[in-house]
Amino acid sequence: MEYQIKNAEGRLGILIPGLGAVATTFIAGVEAIKKGIAQPVGSLTQMGSIRLGKRTENRYPLIKDFVPLAGLNNIAFGGWDVYDDNVYEAAVTAKVLEPSLLQAIKPELEAIVPMKAVFDKSYAKNLTGTNVKEAASKYELAEALMEDMRTFKEENGCDRLVVVWCGSTEIYTEPADVHATVANFEEGLRNNDPRISPSMIYAYAAVKMGVPFANGAPNLTVDIPAIIELALQNEVAISGKDFKTGQTLMKTILAPGLHARALGVKGWFSSNILGNRDGLVLDDPDNFKTKEVSKLSVLDEIFRPESNPELYGDMYHKVRINYYPPHGDNKESWDNIDIFGWLGYPMQIKINFLCRDSILAAPLVLDLALFTDLAQRAGMSGIQEWLSFYYKSPQTAEGLKPEHDIFKQLIKMQNTLRHMMGEDLITHLGLDYYQELVESL
Amino acid sequence: MEYQIKNAEGRLGILIPGLGAVATTFIAGVEAIKKGIAQPVGSLTQMGSIRLGKRTENRYPLIKDFVPLAGLNNIAFGGWDVYDDNVYEAAVTAKVLEPSLLQAIKPELEAIVPMKAVFDKSYAKNLTGTNVKEAASKYELAEALMEDMRTFKEENGCDRLVVVWCGSTEIYTEPADVHATVANFEEGLRNNDPRISPSMIYAYAAVKMGVPFANGAPNLTVDIPAIIELALQNEVAISGKDFKTGQTLMKTILAPGLHARALGVKGWFSSNILGNRDGLVLDDPDNFKTKEVSKLSVLDEIFRPESNPELYGDMYHKVRINYYPPHGDNKESWDNIDIFGWLGYPMQIKINFLCRDSILAAPLVLDLALFTDLAQRAGMSGIQEWLSFYYKSPQTAEGLKPEHDIFKQLIKMQNTLRHMMGEDLITHLGLDYYQELVESL
Amino acid sequence: MEYQIKNAEGRLGILIPGLGAVATTFIAGVEAIKKGIAQPVGSLTQMGSIRLGKRTENRYPLIKDFVPLAGLNNIAFGGWDVYDDNVYEAAVTAKVLEPSLLQAIKPELEAIVPMKAVFDKSYAKNLTGTNVKEAASKYELAEALMEDMRTFKEENGCDRLVVVWCGSTEIYTEPADVHATVANFEEGLRNNDPRISPSMIYAYAAVKMGVPFANGAPNLTVDIPAIIELALQNEVAISGKDFKTGQTLMKTILAPGLHARALGVKGWFSSNILGNRDGLVLDDPDNFKTKEVSKLSVLDEIFRPESNPELYGDMYHKVRINYYPPHGDNKESWDNIDIFGWLGYPMQIKINFLCRDSILAAPLVLDLALFTDLAQRAGMSGIQEWLSFYYKSPQTAEGLKPEHDIFKQLIKMQNTLRHMMGEDLITHLGLDYYQELVESL
Amino acid sequence: MEYQIKNAEGRLGILIPGLGAVATTFIAGVEAIKKGIAQPVGSLTQMGSIRLGKRTENRYPLIKDFVPLAGLNNIAFGGWDVYDDNVYEAAVTAKVLEPSLLQAIKPELEAIVPMKAVFDKSYAKNLTGTNVKEAASKYELAEALMEDMRTFKEENGCDRLVVVWCGSTEIYTEPADVHATVANFEEGLRNNDPRISPSMIYAYAAVKMGVPFANGAPNLTVDIPAIIELALQNEVAISGKDFKTGQTLMKTILAPGLHARALGVKGWFSSNILGNRDGLVLDDPDNFKTKEVSKLSVLDEIFRPESNPELYGDMYHKVRINYYPPHGDNKESWDNIDIFGWLGYPMQIKINFLCRDSILAAPLVLDLALFTDLAQRAGMSGIQEWLSFYYKSPQTAEGLKPEHDIFKQLIKMQNTLRHMMGEDLITHLGLDYYQELVESL
Repeated sequence: MEYQIKNAEGRLGILIPGLGAVATTFIAGVEAIKKGIAQPVGSLTQMGSIRLGKRTENRYPLIKDFVPLAGLNNIAFGGWDVYDDNVYEAAVTAKVLEPSLLQAIKPELEAIVPMKAVFDKSYAKNLTGTNVKEAASKYELAEALMEDMRTFKEENGCDRLVVVWCGSTEIYTEPADVHATVANFEEGLRNNDPRISPSMIYAYAAVKMGVPFANGAPNLTVDIPAIIELALQNEVAISGKDFKTGQTLMKTILAPGLHARALGVKGWFSSNILGNRDGLVLDDPDNFKTKEVSKLSVLDEIFRPESNPELYGDMYHKVRINYYPPHGDNKESWDNIDIFGWLGYPMQIKINFLCRDSILAAPLVLDLALFTDLAQRAGMSGIQEWLSFYYKSPQTAEGLKPEHDIFKQLIKMQNTLRHMMGEDLITHLGLDYYQELVESL
Repeated sequence: MEYQIKNAEGRLGILIPGLGAVATTFIAGVEAIKKGIAQPVGSLTQMGSIRLGKRTENRYPLIKDFVPLAGLNNIAFGGWDVYDDNVYEAAVTAKVLEPSLLQAIKPELEAIVPMKAVFDKSYAKNLTGTNVKEAASKYELAEALMEDMRTFKEENGCDRLVVVWCGSTEIYTEPADVHATVANFEEGLRNNDPRISPSMIYAYAAVKMGVPFANGAPNLTVDIPAIIELALQNEVAISGKDFKTGQTLMKTILAPGLHARALGVKGWFSSNILGNRDGLVLDDPDNFKTKEVSKLSVLDEIFRPESNPELYGDMYHKVRINYYPPHGDNKESWDNIDIFGWLGYPMQIKINFLCRDSILAAPLVLDLALFTDLAQRAGMSGIQEWLSFYYKSPQTAEGLKPEHDIFKQLIKMQNTLRHMMGEDLITHLGLDYYQELVESL
Repeated sequence: MEYQIKNAEGRLGILIPGLGAVATTFIAGVEAIKKGIAQPVGSLTQMGSIRLGKRTENRYPLIKDFVPLAGLNNIAFGGWDVYDDNVYEAAVTAKVLEPSLLQAIKPELEAIVPMKAVFDKSYAKNLTGTNVKEAASKYELAEALMEDMRTFKEENGCDRLVVVWCGSTEIYTEPADVHATVANFEEGLRNNDPRISPSMIYAYAAVKMGVPFANGAPNLTVDIPAIIELALQNEVAISGKDFKTGQTLMKTILAPGLHARALGVKGWFSSNILGNRDGLVLDDPDNFKTKEVSKLSVLDEIFRPESNPELYGDMYHKVRINYYPPHGDNKESWDNIDIFGWLGYPMQIKINFLCRDSILAAPLVLDLALFTDLAQRAGMSGIQEWLSFYYKSPQTAEGLKPEHDIFKQLIKMQNTLRHMMGEDLITHLGLDYYQELVESL
Repeated sequence: MEYQIKNAEGRLGILIPGLGAVATTFIAGVEAIKKGIAQPVGSLTQMGSIRLGKRTENRYPLIKDFVPLAGLNNIAFGGWDVYDDNVYEAAVTAKVLEPSLLQAIKPELEAIVPMKAVFDKSYAKNLTGTNVKEAASKYELAEALMEDMRTFKEENGCDRLVVVWCGSTEIYTEPADVHATVANFEEGLRNNDPRISPSMIYAYAAVKMGVPFANGAPNLTVDIPAIIELALQNEVAISGKDFKTGQTLMKTILAPGLHARALGVKGWFSSNILGNRDGLVLDDPDNFKTKEVSKLSVLDEIFRPESNPELYGDMYHKVRINYYPPHGDNKESWDNIDIFGWLGYPMQIKINFLCRDSILAAPLVLDLALFTDLAQRAGMSGIQEWLSFYYKSPQTAEGLKPEHDIFKQLIKMQNTLRHMMGEDLITHLGLDYYQELVESL
């Protein structure tokens, strides 16, 4: 398998459905970084490095110097939203970034005005927007989105596009017939099938046009057979679901460490307090249930209690999200972990993470946009499992379990990059050094 | 490079200098496990499994079913200590395990009586023992230890021996001429060179006799050129230093996670409270300094601030150990970590680990004894870097930096085991599944 | 107002409806204390002292040496329960105390066998008992309880009785007509009015017989006009409701401190995890609501936001109880408190309390029994507001707000004791010392 | 004892030795409050209320409406410092308040320029200032300070003055002969006795002129017989020592709560991290020792282990202050408290206080200035023990132990205010309500 990666010349358009707290923090951040007044911390594509070759070679280039990525100065931003606030206004409302920072990039942000959104109130009861497309059928809505993309591309002189979903979580839906094939799906679009959600219309429009798509929310969106089929047909890269930030990030760091040491876990209690719109929505038991299911799966995959019943078979895992307005976007988690060691003796770990929701999510938008564009240029179609690193609930090929251990996700991503560039994969074996030493004596 | 691993038949003698809290918790635990009244939690060799082949093969054998290890029923325990308490008495004094558990295995523990120790008060001011060898020179002390080993082997019907150092931390020493070659070292033994510490005499005696050696304390011991040279000559496996437990364990789990995500770290404050003898010794600023140096190095190796100056260049790292008798062996750590994300926005992580010192260390003694015996049977001489996973300050070949990231240590260990058994190394690349899927369409 | 306190000679019978975790921990504890194998920690009547006179007098007698209380050797225990396990069996089931401790007092505990309980499933859906009284009317049930008390008193040679409710929380009920007068209530007993709960039948039976009553659960029980009227008629001491332990105890300690310093509070988030039967019951949203109402009231009374709107007007207070079986009776709370100081600058306090539910409650049972008996002998009828110190939701005379500040509760209790014994009340004014000093110059 | 309190008309000058972080946060705050852009949170004199009469009267006036205090618009600020930065510049350097807030009151702050300080490097090795008085003797320095006060009073049209020490902690000194009488002290001033510290010269100058003095640092200053004698002669109010903020504040809130409930304490470990100049100074073991002694005394006074040996006799109390630059003025404390309850069962409390040093101290400066002025107008000379509420180490008359329980301190302060204004003292007895109820039936 060899890769012929097209170069990254020309302009990349990043189009975002949902210009709220995460998206505006991302866009404002990139503008501030371009001005040299802030750093892209948390972004592997901008600040991460990668080891190449043997340890003794001491080669650790920056990732952006190793693989051909779009440069920040060659990016155009756009998007859709149900509110018509421009990005400056939306960022002020979100209260994530300091007024003085936003002031410094006001003109750039004001210039980005949302296109009319595809919206369906039955998928987001708490939202009421006015900046919404009207059309006779979902098929026509998809066509309107495609027209938006064409126009945006032309007006902004873009050579390539990528879409990253940053919209709200839609209500829970199960895959059905209408999602099973491209043919069924297109018929559903024409018939206004209620089981096709807005995010699926965006996904269809993008993939139909050959534009790759990354999904930052837990909705199905690109994770249905119809879109996967279309992506393979049209040779388009897709990935999802749900940006991995905060408590789940910590969990997928810590749990592999406990498992590595064969320490048992009797209970894991996770509490969250947050006061932004996300917290308000999740205060509703129905909405929380969707999120809960996703959050709970993480530990099972890492500990595999079925094959370690003495260590993890009785693990009690509970996740709670509590709406707590005093904290705003400053999400805070408290975890109590009851572990046991040698002979079953109990120990406890308490983790208190005072984090910031959008600050953790914004660099993931950037990385996913740039890596998805890279995959597209490298001709890697369909599900990009090597991007699991960024997702709470990674999309995988049918029949494969998602990998949640962040360190395995990281190695997979790094070895994919090495593989793409023709470098040796790294196994950390390193026995050869010793062999040579022995022989040299 | 192919391995011809000798089988694990016959009896393995595990000899331990220092029969204190860790060693007695280890021995009592193995006896309880053999009786079926407790589980070897925390021990990879007993409870850990390993993935083999592709994910789709779903092969996860227990490690002990995969590689040929000595069985728990084929082990004999022995050791040396400056006090003449038998293992039952020493375990009662240590107050780690419940009286009822110790009662159930009292005869087995009482039968293990320490041999006279090699002791030098200048290396451990706070210790005063009576069960001590007397001899004209350090060379004669080494010979006495070798005689002890021969006798133990014969009396206990052992086929093989392994030594694991569980004694107290010796005072800080720098490597000198006397440690540079086997010849210099042997002359030093004869001349009673004061720079040869007791633990070095144990190391010399073992390696000279072809017995492999693992070092659980931060002393140099086997980490001097003379012993490395002797180990290669005699084809003996050695490794060290300092069992990785508690706060440092957590640090080498969490720091790789933050680094993986390119999150910056401004400060890391680590406080410990513990009330056992270890805590008392480390309450002395001089003794603490040795430990501090070792503990501080961990983060630098993982974050590599020299190549990530914007993220880790200004990191302020402070470690404190506070003697606090109310907690006894129940060591507790509190860490405050000041991180920063996108555009430099600050966040905080607080970790409170209510752990147990000896409970975390005991399974490491077992794993190191069994894996070291395996390496010896596989003909792997010299420094066993693949056992870095167990050490706070891993011993490596000259010129190589130690690896502290516990997940890289784990992969190195697992891939070494796979390699020894002729299985494919795992790179987590996994692109092939997708390729096949694409082709099958 | 002068007190003629009858002496404490003779035997006191303590009768407890509900012989579960709290009651058995209390009874087992007293037996262990009598044997000299444990200490009555947490009990003011046994270990607390009280300052008398001016500071310079240095008089700090133990409370039990200051006021005439029943001695532990003059107490007989009895009670009712829906299960017929004796107290030893019930204590083993509760898993609060160590087996070895229970073993040492097994005969004493086995001798205490519960009388048949008054039980009504509609007031406690999760309970199903077999050791239950049958009768044609609630009036007859009350008569049967009175007969039980007479029999117990006679068989155990008791001079006085006191009843302390340690049963489960009943479902929420509002006071109604049937609770308004003694006449209505007695008619309701005869008519089997469904609004009369089991705990009210116990309360009626006791107060009717002149036996004082303390209520450790949040049920109304003695907090209805009919029982208050009867208590004043029959000159009986009563008090309630809900033992103050754990998180609420901490809250009524900390909140007065913040209020004392005029520090503002923007939010107070309280999370609890516990795994005993209490936790299971409270995992049900309906049952939790009753508890929540009670727990939430505490802060409002202390901060009085209506008179401090700038400091406490926007306080967001949230309490969560999470069922978490791994912890059993070891209740654990985590509080995040968002405060603000000078010019509104925000600060945070996090409190993690690893407590034990029944261990905190047991000494309250003892103190309430002994102090209630004291009040009765002192002729103090009706609501004993000076015992607010022990309650989460103190019962007060109509028209008065309960006092939640634990330090005001303490002073009230101490000054009441001083007053009863004819000692000066303490105001901590202390200006006189200085005046004397000035004059002496 | 009756009080004739002079009214608060006219202008009050607040003079501060040491215009650093605390003093500038105080002054800037008052200016911002006067402009209506911030609130005096944390100040009892501005935002606190006081209950008067019986509970049923429902009288809770603001303290400032109850006792005659100087109004914020009638205050003039001045002070001395070894640096000649004006208050605006010093506040910017301190980095406690936001630039935008300081900007809004820049002219007022710039107008306050420090007078030349009395300084002696042997009392503060880490400080090097240039804005320093030169004189032949300490007596002349005292005269120069008196001249400063006279000039300030006249130029600012003040009717009264008060001095509040906000300077750095001086090195530890024991009281000696030279501090024993006014006569000795004045001779020492003339002889340049090295045992007279700068803060004592300020104290002498103020008290000599009839200006009351409050001491916010742990230095002796006004806590020597000579100054106490002079204060009584000249009828001047004095008080000290060391503003009670942060961890010690929490300790004197929580410890009385544990003691109230007769819960035992086995250990209390207190760790602090802070990164301001105070932290740097206290990183030196010698300086820390002074602070440690003061901080450790708090618990002993509250728990009185000598009279509660079973509960507090074995308490291990340890306090650590760690310099940690990443946190700046944002001091953070972590406390682990090992308590035990009924039958000795252990429990743990962990408190993590993310506080701000100067924000907690600033309102104490205001309250102490206004209450000290009140005491002076009320003719209350000498040590103001009723202000213990504000101090870590309250100054008391000889032979009396300081009261550390913040709730007793509060009652003392409130009852003193009630007493001054001829209101009934409050004992929280409240039995009368019940008596009336009984009688009315």
